[in-house]
Amino acid sequence: MRPDERSATEHEMRGTDREVPAEQQAREQALVDQVVASFDRASDPRLQELMQALTRHLHAFLREVRLSQDEWERAIAFLTETGHITDGRRQEFILLSDVLGASMQTIGINNEAYANATEATVFGPFFVEGSPQIPPGGNIAAGASGESCWVEGTVTTTDGKPIAGARIEVWQADNEGFYDVQYSDERTAARAHLYTGDQGEYRFWALTPTPYPIPHDGPVGRLLEATGRSPMRASHLHFMVSAAGSRTLVTHIFVRGDTMLATDAVFGVKDSLVVGFEQQAAGTPAPDGRDLGARSWSRVRFDIILAPARVP
Amino acid sequence: MRPDERSATEHEMRGTDREVPAEQQAREQALVDQVVASFDRASDPRLQELMQALTRHLHAFLREVRLSQDEWERAIAFLTETGHITDGRRQEFILLSDVLGASMQTIGINNEAYANATEATVFGPFFVEGSPQIPPGGNIAAGASGESCWVEGTVTTTDGKPIAGARIEVWQADNEGFYDVQYSDERTAARAHLYTGDQGEYRFWALTPTPYPIPHDGPVGRLLEATGRSPMRASHLHFMVSAAGSRTLVTHIFVRGDTMLATDAVFGVKDSLVVGFEQQAAGTPAPDGRDLGARSWSRVRFDIILAPARVP
Repeated sequence: MRPDERSATEHEMRGTDREVPAEQQAREQALVDQVVASFDRASDPRLQELMQALTRHLHAFLREVRLSQDEWERAIAFLTETGHITDGRRQEFILLSDVLGASMQTIGINNEAYANATEATVFGPFFVEGSPQIPPGGNIAAGASGESCWVEGTVTTTDGKPIAGARIEVWQADNEGFYDVQYSDERTAARAHLYTGDQGEYRFWALTPTPYPIPHDGPVGRLLEATGRSPMRASHLHFMVSAAGSRTLVTHIFVRGDTMLATDAVFGVKDSLVVGFEQQAAGTPAPDGRDLGARSWSRVRFDIILAPARVP
Repeated sequence: MRPDERSATEHEMRGTDREVPAEQQAREQALVDQVVASFDRASDPRLQELMQALTRHLHAFLREVRLSQDEWERAIAFLTETGHITDGRRQEFILLSDVLGASMQTIGINNEAYANATEATVFGPFFVEGSPQIPPGGNIAAGASGESCWVEGTVTTTDGKPIAGARIEVWQADNEGFYDVQYSDERTAARAHLYTGDQGEYRFWALTPTPYPIPHDGPVGRLLEATGRSPMRASHLHFMVSAAGSRTLVTHIFVRGDTMLATDAVFGVKDSLVVGFEQQAAGTPAPDGRDLGARSWSRVRFDIILAPARVP
């Protein structure tokens, strides 16, 4: 689906703005009806609903744009390449869903605003099961490059009750813009999990987030380039917070003042998730007495509010 | 996107039939608008049109079905598996497009009915560039198993003028239901091309088509199974016919009386493409004097009418 002159010419020749003759429209609709009916015997009613709706919307797209055979072939080639670049470390289909806003729309559908609960945002392709546990005040960096950042806050319910023992997964890119899984040396770094204390409190060391591009050397990157879009993600730190009786929250915090906030490649930014990272000059004592030598650091507070598991 | 009990339960819990609150609808629409606007700077206007329409229809689907996070994850896994099974010999994305009727819809959009021109149908994933040329009356089988079938006809324009030198590509499955490229031994069989003579006439030996399943040991096969659909294709012989000044025709002929005609897995059957294959008892002399020994054979006539390249 990259631009080329042939496609533009074909488009003009075929004239997508002209009216489609009634008989042709009837044939096209008859095919849609036939495909929809083919899913009538699905054993699972939800699967039937999904496939029939997918059929209707997919065909509506094809008919509206009057997709050319050449464009169909390029779409097949694009999906094929997306499949071939995807492996255990690279998930190009999630990137595609992300840059089309489909990931964010799904997140929004499944995390409808509830009272003062913290908003959700995209999961992204870089979460890994089985992260190491760190104690309260521990450091997730494990050697990842970047400026140290003290992160603290609480996890509470929407009516203000502290949640003890909530599990907090955190992960982020290093100063080079890469997550550990993007390196080929099997390292585990800048990802960990910890649990809140009796008063719902948590604290840990991470890295001050920096902007980075999503992997853009593949088909999704070429799509962004062809459409004049930036591959950059606004600086962020990933959170996934879960506790019994609460709705699991997948979110980020973003850095107030980051110039990438308005053009985040995956549409993940929400105003309520943009927080102040306070820069600390070299020599400023750390909250836990850690010796940071002659290096600057930053600190941020993020109080997390979880919706109940069953939203009334 | 396979059925499981969890998805049905989630569906009931989430209640896709309930009304979505106005504020939530506004947030969802705002995201759609944001993603659509992100494509405003595409250098190619057709690419912009395609991506903006894709965004609108994709989000309309997600919002209508209230896609769950779990369903999104299974869709990503389905696409990933579809990508990984696809290689030089297996094109699962084309199969997916085929079983969703998207291939057939695209064919229809690009081959609007024109006068008495022969109708088009799906291309399928088994065409290969560079087929061997056979002379008039030659045999495409090249060792492929099956009953011999004499195929003859003419290629003309819609006003009845014979088209000399039209290129006819033909390809088909063997008696086991496999195309040559589905074998791992690099064979070339049951595919060839030939040219029409001065009066637009053509003739060749092929195999009597037999029904076969599309490859159904992958994700597309599982989708068909979960939705109670047959993977069988109605028996057919593929044609691609091209000539200077004419619209290239991609089509099949189907076998009158085949019980699979009504449930063709890829929605390829059109009444006008169902033709009579006349069974010939063993010992019936062949039209070209070929010695078929003690074997039965069949014969079929298929007169092909090409639309002009630029449909007025």
